[in-house]
Amino acid sequence: MRLHDMNWQAVEAYLERDDRIVIPIGSTEQHGYLSLGTDAILAERVAVEAAEPLGIPVLPVLPFGLAPYFTAFPGSLTLRIETFLNVVRDLLDTLEGQGFRRFAIVNGHGGNAPAQNLARDWVAQSRSHRVQVVFTSWYAAPKVAALAASHEADPTHGGWFENFPWTRLPDVAMPEGGKPVLSRGVVEQASPADIRELTPDGSFGGSYALPDDVMDEIWRTGVVEVRDLLSDGWAFS
Amino acid sequence: MRLHDMNWQAVEAYLERDDRIVIPIGSTEQHGYLSLGTDAILAERVAVEAAEPLGIPVLPVLPFGLAPYFTAFPGSLTLRIETFLNVVRDLLDTLEGQGFRRFAIVNGHGGNAPAQNLARDWVAQSRSHRVQVVFTSWYAAPKVAALAASHEADPTHGGWFENFPWTRLPDVAMPEGGKPVLSRGVVEQASPADIRELTPDGSFGGSYALPDDVMDEIWRTGVVEVRDLLSDGWAFS
Amino acid sequence: MRLHDMNWQAVEAYLERDDRIVIPIGSTEQHGYLSLGTDAILAERVAVEAAEPLGIPVLPVLPFGLAPYFTAFPGSLTLRIETFLNVVRDLLDTLEGQGFRRFAIVNGHGGNAPAQNLARDWVAQSRSHRVQVVFTSWYAAPKVAALAASHEADPTHGGWFENFPWTRLPDVAMPEGGKPVLSRGVVEQASPADIRELTPDGSFGGSYALPDDVMDEIWRTGVVEVRDLLSDGWAFS
Amino acid sequence: MRLHDMNWQAVEAYLERDDRIVIPIGSTEQHGYLSLGTDAILAERVAVEAAEPLGIPVLPVLPFGLAPYFTAFPGSLTLRIETFLNVVRDLLDTLEGQGFRRFAIVNGHGGNAPAQNLARDWVAQSRSHRVQVVFTSWYAAPKVAALAASHEADPTHGGWFENFPWTRLPDVAMPEGGKPVLSRGVVEQASPADIRELTPDGSFGGSYALPDDVMDEIWRTGVVEVRDLLSDGWAFS
Amino acid sequence: MRLHDMNWQAVEAYLERDDRIVIPIGSTEQHGYLSLGTDAILAERVAVEAAEPLGIPVLPVLPFGLAPYFTAFPGSLTLRIETFLNVVRDLLDTLEGQGFRRFAIVNGHGGNAPAQNLARDWVAQSRSHRVQVVFTSWYAAPKVAALAASHEADPTHGGWFENFPWTRLPDVAMPEGGKPVLSRGVVEQASPADIRELTPDGSFGGSYALPDDVMDEIWRTGVVEVRDLLSDGWAFS
Amino acid sequence: MRLHDMNWQAVEAYLERDDRIVIPIGSTEQHGYLSLGTDAILAERVAVEAAEPLGIPVLPVLPFGLAPYFTAFPGSLTLRIETFLNVVRDLLDTLEGQGFRRFAIVNGHGGNAPAQNLARDWVAQSRSHRVQVVFTSWYAAPKVAALAASHEADPTHGGWFENFPWTRLPDVAMPEGGKPVLSRGVVEQASPADIRELTPDGSFGGSYALPDDVMDEIWRTGVVEVRDLLSDGWAFS
Repeated sequence: MRLHDMNWQAVEAYLERDDRIVIPIGSTEQHGYLSLGTDAILAERVAVEAAEPLGIPVLPVLPFGLAPYFTAFPGSLTLRIETFLNVVRDLLDTLEGQGFRRFAIVNGHGGNAPAQNLARDWVAQSRSHRVQVVFTSWYAAPKVAALAASHEADPTHGGWFENFPWTRLPDVAMPEGGKPVLSRGVVEQASPADIRELTPDGSFGGSYALPDDVMDEIWRTGVVEVRDLLSDGWAFS
Repeated sequence: MRLHDMNWQAVEAYLERDDRIVIPIGSTEQHGYLSLGTDAILAERVAVEAAEPLGIPVLPVLPFGLAPYFTAFPGSLTLRIETFLNVVRDLLDTLEGQGFRRFAIVNGHGGNAPAQNLARDWVAQSRSHRVQVVFTSWYAAPKVAALAASHEADPTHGGWFENFPWTRLPDVAMPEGGKPVLSRGVVEQASPADIRELTPDGSFGGSYALPDDVMDEIWRTGVVEVRDLLSDGWAFS
Repeated sequence: MRLHDMNWQAVEAYLERDDRIVIPIGSTEQHGYLSLGTDAILAERVAVEAAEPLGIPVLPVLPFGLAPYFTAFPGSLTLRIETFLNVVRDLLDTLEGQGFRRFAIVNGHGGNAPAQNLARDWVAQSRSHRVQVVFTSWYAAPKVAALAASHEADPTHGGWFENFPWTRLPDVAMPEGGKPVLSRGVVEQASPADIRELTPDGSFGGSYALPDDVMDEIWRTGVVEVRDLLSDGWAFS
Repeated sequence: MRLHDMNWQAVEAYLERDDRIVIPIGSTEQHGYLSLGTDAILAERVAVEAAEPLGIPVLPVLPFGLAPYFTAFPGSLTLRIETFLNVVRDLLDTLEGQGFRRFAIVNGHGGNAPAQNLARDWVAQSRSHRVQVVFTSWYAAPKVAALAASHEADPTHGGWFENFPWTRLPDVAMPEGGKPVLSRGVVEQASPADIRELTPDGSFGGSYALPDDVMDEIWRTGVVEVRDLLSDGWAFS
Repeated sequence: MRLHDMNWQAVEAYLERDDRIVIPIGSTEQHGYLSLGTDAILAERVAVEAAEPLGIPVLPVLPFGLAPYFTAFPGSLTLRIETFLNVVRDLLDTLEGQGFRRFAIVNGHGGNAPAQNLARDWVAQSRSHRVQVVFTSWYAAPKVAALAASHEADPTHGGWFENFPWTRLPDVAMPEGGKPVLSRGVVEQASPADIRELTPDGSFGGSYALPDDVMDEIWRTGVVEVRDLLSDGWAFS
Repeated sequence: MRLHDMNWQAVEAYLERDDRIVIPIGSTEQHGYLSLGTDAILAERVAVEAAEPLGIPVLPVLPFGLAPYFTAFPGSLTLRIETFLNVVRDLLDTLEGQGFRRFAIVNGHGGNAPAQNLARDWVAQSRSHRVQVVFTSWYAAPKVAALAASHEADPTHGGWFENFPWTRLPDVAMPEGGKPVLSRGVVEQASPADIRELTPDGSFGGSYALPDDVMDEIWRTGVVEVRDLLSDGWAFS
């Protein structure tokens, strides 16, 4: 349930019966022909759909993440690493102070990985009660990743694997077919200017789109996989 | 236009004809019977409606702000001041790097005022081109504030002045009437625990609701006032 | 009583009967023809005079504040926001560790407003005893502000409202009369270079001086208003 | 070549013909029966052996990394994430100022992954010349990882895969055989106290040792794989 | 000349003929029977008297420094090291931006020594013009230190060497004679509570006072020594 | 005993009988003809030899320190002051959490002096048990310094006093004789570029080498002096 569809009284009532909460984190950055909000949209949506039947509150997505390499594509935003980690830490601290004990960070952007390191650091702090944080990049979880790979190897940034009805833009026509996949090693060393040269349209390659029924199956798999994590993914009880 | 309804190509095209952008900042915090997202919802919505006819892109709202005093109400979130200011600074820095030169921060939460100080600090940095930042707390702008005061003096946190169709919750009944207004001086010195005692339901007093046509007029006034700022509020040209 | 007119033994004795302390914060920045120290001088002086009959210790004024927009006027100083807030936080932390519980921040400079946000954040920290912070910008407190406005509307930076015998300089002749008041909206968007152009002499407009008896009344009003706050302004007891 | 086996004149001469440098980063933390310095020892050694025939200087290893989860095992050290990232940033900044342009971070500890994010952020800074950073966790590079997996699946922390003649301790006898491998998911949520319970001896499972010829082949493979990266791993030229 | 006795026009005129400025830094901390402001008072006064005939502006003293070990004596204040260094850095940055090039930090408190390290770091930044910073702890400069030692060996904190007419308090009688000098090694390891036990009155030992003519000679020597530094102490020209 | 020659079980056993630990801190920076690692090598070696017979663990040396003024000599590294202090703080925090209570920082580089201020700040934190930190710059301790001065006055950076068999490089011939000693006052104001001009070879003057038996005596004196500190230098027990 979206936290923004609750008032504080509802959260207080919830805390009497549960201590879980979901923190979706995304990014606002170029995704080829798709929405600049792709990673934020997907992270929030998968979190909300996964949490709904469990009744777990879902924070509004953090729409800004770590994407320094995309800054040459207008409309891409990035936080410095320290800023980003501090946002996540402040959210965890505030929520812990209110009685939340189990936190699921649902991530929509590969560059946000240090949030997991932050979470481990945060859990390692000395305290008198147990806290648990699960971190998942929903698109890289085992079932979704396997299913995606069964349709087309090596799903990339800005390609079909991020092309859902809720991330494509109404008046934008996707190119037909696809293009070769960029080398990950090259991308990882590239400056913002390099990346614009490497991919004039922003996509890292592969097909631009797969059929809707494929995407639908992937989405449903992702939702269930996050839901299973929220439900059964807590190592300690 | 919501940035998330654009792709980077659209932003690049926009930058060839304009250099303005809107940054809405809100908060997720108790608002009495209203949505925990009230300040974020209002800031983003007023920004989007104001910017729409002007074609100016609007960032996704920063849903977390400075609300340390509300942390005893579950579901309220707060960033530390440094974290909050760094988020705003990082957004300004990134956008400036892409050619944006005029920035409108549309604020939905009184506690976020230091963002304006940050903006003045940021503008004062040495650089070779001009940047301008206008900052408005939409609900405190002259026309909206005067109109509100004409209906009921001293509109407060969590009361009628924040009670719009898009901030109230479907299954939550508002109390009838109102209650006395809390002293601002007392609130400003209160700890989180104090505030829970001062206001058991979270509202700072006054009526809980005014008629829809009043709220509608206030809203339309606010939208126009922000739009005028986006259109004509730039001191230098 | 100035803390610098005390030794630690005197403070220790004081703490056995009281827990209040005054922290004046100012700025060193251009004030037109007046002293660069105007804001620091006034904040410290009003604090000392207000506190004297109450026997409350007054820290030495923090002479540096937030004034990035004035840096093109030589002799103006500014701290980065984080630095400034950390100074205030460190002072509060140290004093709290010694048993002080009620803190009055007496501010002499509009740009220092984020100190109040810091104070609210600081008060909101979890602790086992109560602390209270009152924050006042002495020149903007209700009685002083009303009295000033009754003499000339819209008192501004570097004008008559800051022109006291202890802020004017012995060998500097003030201009006769006054000049038009700068638009606040324009000033708030101005870079340091802009401000030098907008106001060649540094004043933001209005009369350069009012008669001594007017200023004397304003001063005495300000002292009493701060004293009342120190005496009766604590919300919780 | 170890930087500590050079004087500045030698580095200056080197910079006239090359612009590469190696930054090994490790950790000091429990490794079961093995040396607390295992990750630092391996990172530095593999870097030095790889770089030797290429004549590339190798910094002294950063012996402290991110290992908050191990702090309940005495002798384990950890830096806060910000501290760790700042060390890496400061080293890159200083070396860039001297003319180095291609940097290889050779990592020995899984928890140090955010150094790669820092590197991408650093590369993305605006500058007038090209810099490149390659980041490798030597033990996870494709060839070494495949070879290791061919001997025993799922090599873990503190087990055979880190047991080299230069990480075991002269007077410490390793246990015979092995033990079950801990679940990665459980470990990732564990607090320091949890980890001590999960693994009383510190190893995460699997065999404690493999034959020396196996380890020797793995080592030589790792050295060559890092060397190939130093030699041919630069995406831009 | 005190900066607070100038307006910006005077500083601008000064910068046309000179580029030196004095930054006195002190501390507010227990000094036995003497003023809590001793270090700030002495640093500012020696700076002002030294600079007067040279016409060099003197900033208002930074009244807060690094004195964590004195926090158990009420009225003692301390900044965290980062805060303190940032204040000094911000002042240098702002003044450099206005054309000042030669900075004299006149220090009154032993614990403030890291300001000198900060200054060296600051000077080492890459820039296109030369800046110079001289740092002096006036009481430890060669001539003053030798003269003091000729009167009584080992002058200490809170003893005769800080007892000037402007640091003693009107109604406080100093003890007769003196007491043994505390071991420096012990003091350096002492916690705040330890120091209160080691020195019940705050003085670190030796005589409480020397004759006025001795103190007068010391003072005049100190003023001249600082003046010589301001005049001739610049290594590069 | 080097911590890297121990596993965690050995440290745990040690903590049952002792609570001391040694933290050597060095620098990687130009030392004339000597190794870039001179300060790190000496700090670690003197610490290890001093601690060996006492059985106290010695951390791996922190090989990076504060040396901004040497950055124009390639291969010299420096951390920003905040980074450096945070590393030392993080190490102290982690070790304290494991039961260590007495910490000896053995320093090999003059520029690292702020680590002592950090240590005093750290000791002054409020806690329920006693911690002690001794800080020694081994080369400046009384006996070593006196012995050195008896051989040649004013031992300097990069000269004979740092020329040991373990800091000179096998294939580098030292110049014969010596050269005039640079003025300390000049060096302290010098930018990185200035220092390269002041000392084309990096040495600050004096003889380049003294006879081996002299250096051997100095070394043995240094080791014993550090050992005495580790053994008897704790002010409180």
